[in-house]
Amino acid sequence: MHDQSHQSTSVLTDDECWEFLDLQPIGRLATAVGGVPEIFPVTFAVADRLVYFKTRPGAKLAELAVNAHVAFEADQWGPDVAYSVVLHGDAEILERDADRAAAEATGLRSYLQDGKNVWVRITPTEVSGRRLSR
Amino acid sequence: MHDQSHQSTSVLTDDECWEFLDLQPIGRLATAVGGVPEIFPVTFAVADRLVYFKTRPGAKLAELAVNAHVAFEADQWGPDVAYSVVLHGDAEILERDADRAAAEATGLRSYLQDGKNVWVRITPTEVSGRRLSR
Repeated sequence: MHDQSHQSTSVLTDDECWEFLDLQPIGRLATAVGGVPEIFPVTFAVADRLVYFKTRPGAKLAELAVNAHVAFEADQWGPDVAYSVVLHGDAEILERDADRAAAEATGLRSYLQDGKNVWVRITPTEVSGRRLSR
Repeated sequence: MHDQSHQSTSVLTDDECWEFLDLQPIGRLATAVGGVPEIFPVTFAVADRLVYFKTRPGAKLAELAVNAHVAFEADQWGPDVAYSVVLHGDAEILERDADRAAAEATGLRSYLQDGKNVWVRITPTEVSGRRLSR
């Protein structure tokens, strides 16, 4: 248990950020194309400090193709304490068999319907996390 | 209970989207400035189909000042069913007493530390929601 004063904010270490991400099943991907922000919830997995998720060819992928720079967020909220981790990075659709095998090895179980889904990997350039209490 | 087939996706009506948003305490705000996506978790409240949240003067507000068009998302995930609602709209810092009173009337309890917080209101231009099952 943390012993911190009422209404405090503390910054997570990189290790704490990745441990937190590893525990979360759901994150949100934000993209920016032509000045228009978009946001998509995704089920995701983490391995070797890379973020993996699956998607269907469509609007989301079109966004990524135009602007591979993405932001990604996961959070958890209790009555009095909240955690949030945000990372920025570059997203790419995995084309190589070895990359797809690494993605499959995460064991991710998504809500996507069966079909022509593709794997996307986010390679982070920065990660930051916060713990808030109220 | 819904009686839908395995791995289905259905679209929520506007009424269902707003009811869902009304039940969620936490959403994520996405902005796009200079082609760079940012994402921020916020505690929020809904009233009259407007979204209210509080923030501290700082990075988030700077984003909004440069590009008031935002995306906002809330979701809920179970083992087999997920809901997500995304809206797009324009965010503004509330300056008028009447607007701030409407925001205060939502009773929002945020994680922000006491201090010079400001109210932000998102006026939606579109809202969409999905129910996924797996």
